Amino acid sequence: MKKIGIADTMFARGDMGGLAERTIKEARPDVRVERFTVPGVKDLPVACKKLIEEKECDIVIALGMPGKEDIDKVCTHEASQGIIQAQLATNTHIIEVFVHEDEGRNDRELAEIMRDRASKHALNVLDLLFNQDSLRKRAGTGQRQGSKNAKKLNI
Amino acid sequence: MKKIGIADTMFARGDMGGLAERTIKEARPDVRVERFTVPGVKDLPVACKKLIEEKECDIVIALGMPGKEDIDKVCTHEASQGIIQAQLATNTHIIEVFVHEDEGRNDRELAEIMRDRASKHALNVLDLLFNQDSLRKRAGTGQRQGSKNAKKLNI
Amino acid sequence: MKKIGIADTMFARGDMGGLAERTIKEARPDVRVERFTVPGVKDLPVACKKLIEEKECDIVIALGMPGKEDIDKVCTHEASQGIIQAQLATNTHIIEVFVHEDEGRNDRELAEIMRDRASKHALNVLDLLFNQDSLRKRAGTGQRQGSKNAKKLNI
Amino acid sequence: MKKIGIADTMFARGDMGGLAERTIKEARPDVRVERFTVPGVKDLPVACKKLIEEKECDIVIALGMPGKEDIDKVCTHEASQGIIQAQLATNTHIIEVFVHEDEGRNDRELAEIMRDRASKHALNVLDLLFNQDSLRKRAGTGQRQGSKNAKKLNI
Amino acid sequence: MKKIGIADTMFARGDMGGLAERTIKEARPDVRVERFTVPGVKDLPVACKKLIEEKECDIVIALGMPGKEDIDKVCTHEASQGIIQAQLATNTHIIEVFVHEDEGRNDRELAEIMRDRASKHALNVLDLLFNQDSLRKRAGTGQRQGSKNAKKLNI
Repeated sequence: MKKIGIADTMFARGDMGGLAERTIKEARPDVRVERFTVPGVKDLPVACKKLIEEKECDIVIALGMPGKEDIDKVCTHEASQGIIQAQLATNTHIIEVFVHEDEGRNDRELAEIMRDRASKHALNVLDLLFNQDSLRKRAGTGQRQGSKNAKKLNI
Repeated sequence: MKKIGIADTMFARGDMGGLAERTIKEARPDVRVERFTVPGVKDLPVACKKLIEEKECDIVIALGMPGKEDIDKVCTHEASQGIIQAQLATNTHIIEVFVHEDEGRNDRELAEIMRDRASKHALNVLDLLFNQDSLRKRAGTGQRQGSKNAKKLNI
Repeated sequence: MKKIGIADTMFARGDMGGLAERTIKEARPDVRVERFTVPGVKDLPVACKKLIEEKECDIVIALGMPGKEDIDKVCTHEASQGIIQAQLATNTHIIEVFVHEDEGRNDRELAEIMRDRASKHALNVLDLLFNQDSLRKRAGTGQRQGSKNAKKLNI
Repeated sequence: MKKIGIADTMFARGDMGGLAERTIKEARPDVRVERFTVPGVKDLPVACKKLIEEKECDIVIALGMPGKEDIDKVCTHEASQGIIQAQLATNTHIIEVFVHEDEGRNDRELAEIMRDRASKHALNVLDLLFNQDSLRKRAGTGQRQGSKNAKKLNI
Repeated sequence: MKKIGIADTMFARGDMGGLAERTIKEARPDVRVERFTVPGVKDLPVACKKLIEEKECDIVIALGMPGKEDIDKVCTHEASQGIIQAQLATNTHIIEVFVHEDEGRNDRELAEIMRDRASKHALNVLDLLFNQDSLRKRAGTGQRQGSKNAKKLNI
């Protein structure tokens, strides 16, 4: 039985981890889920690595909300670098779902982006685990999470 | 018995390491604390890794104060990257508590931010060690250290 | 028999992975190709490393399309760093083929850049595998992918 | 007997490595010193790691002078990241003493900053080796190298 | 007998690799040289590591020409980080010789910078291999490659 790790933060302004868990369990009730909440995005890399190495997760989804200050952008960059390093160290996918606090023009939009991105990436995680053909068929088709898909060009 | 490492710097303009130690010992008198002071934030990554690997700390709190010049911002970025790498190398949490010298509008505000952030993160460290459910219950609720919490959005 | 990994993304607005595969198979029908599609560029580093270590690819070509927002530039930087780290960890070349969404002035130009860069780099991959002398002879000659070659200077 | 590595560059406009060596030998004539000079700051990370792993130094001081161009700032950032990685790989402190060529308003000021920073950090290196309590007592007291100390705030 | 690796690119607009090889062979006809040409600077890190680990080079010189666009600056930064990581992973020097396409005001100047920097660094490589005292004697003397030396200050 496959096990999916969900790492999220107390800093984020919406329960994206909970939404990801519900999305996964509805689509695949047979999958086990392991949750881990940390203070902020910079705490996510080691949390994800521990989910993989200590909790034996087959894949992880890491959800967070970078703040709107310049310094927050730098922190997010560091977190993302760490998440990539954790993947390389474990040969395991960690799908990063970051919604920037200033991505939406208001709270309603921000909530909508969180919903869309977290749920779509939860399904991407399932495809990576169970159905890589589904990703392959959409290669180069302009898929977006958190906004409308882009136009595909023929090359 | 759990052991918490506290790494701090001579550069910082307030004794955040001492405050973190007092906060931890008041809340959990049974916990052992190991201190390590280095010149500046760039010396923290290896100090934290040594606290974990040579002093057998179960978790570390790294406290520092980035200066206000542009070059200080770059140094801080390097320090933060190193702290994340030290975590990944040890599968151990290092909670970074950085208060930028220019975060406060004056010395009084700067001191208040140091106090708030260092003490709150000292308690986060205890939760990561002893009570992860406490973090989990606050997932996605807009928790802040050094300022007021943000508004939680329902998604 | 040599095996080439092709890692691409659903985010890209053109099927560069498919074009790379066709280019390789036309030039060298004897080569095996292994495909892997992931959501976006930040998922490429571990995908490439898995192609090398789990699918035993001798070389990988990683194709993606960074978006046009500032945040996309940062993500791309993280992806590229990860791709270099994956190469160093495996002593294996991963040729990165990134076409920025804002490189072309319109969709027609963007498609043309994708075509040119993906097909030329597919041939570079073959040269790295089978004919390093071909690269050596062009050392310092201003070769470009996605635009015209630059002028060679005698030194 | 302890051994201190001194890595410096031909690029720097003052003999900070020589000054560090004199400072160390005056304060602790019993300590052995191993010198290594490289072209520029980007050559320092591996030089430091070799001093630690091949020359068995217990600690290293790395002295360099970043140039004043934008590109020099980027090189310095890369050097500093490498120095932190070398520390993490060896669990050994490398104290970085960089004086930016544009830190002083004129040559006299630049020389003074080099003198102050190199000699103070040479003493910090000795404290890290022999007297960590001395650092601990100054935790959070606004110590500076290359300029006057900052004001300590009570928190 | 010592072996020097020369890694260069097809992207560069002048044959700096060839010039480095000639410079080395004139000065030290007894040294063996191993060449490796890759498409661009981002392919250099793994090329250098392979020269060290698979071709048993004792030191490597990596020559490349970053383009003039902003995106080229980012690629170069990634390449340089990778080159430092390759050095740390192998405890072997890789002397980076990058000449930015926009360093010269015209093609004549650009060619002159390539000539000066590539040949001087080829000699630095020999000094690192055979005559470290020569570097040591020039510590802190303002040595430059690609331009005139800077003024040495007494400290």
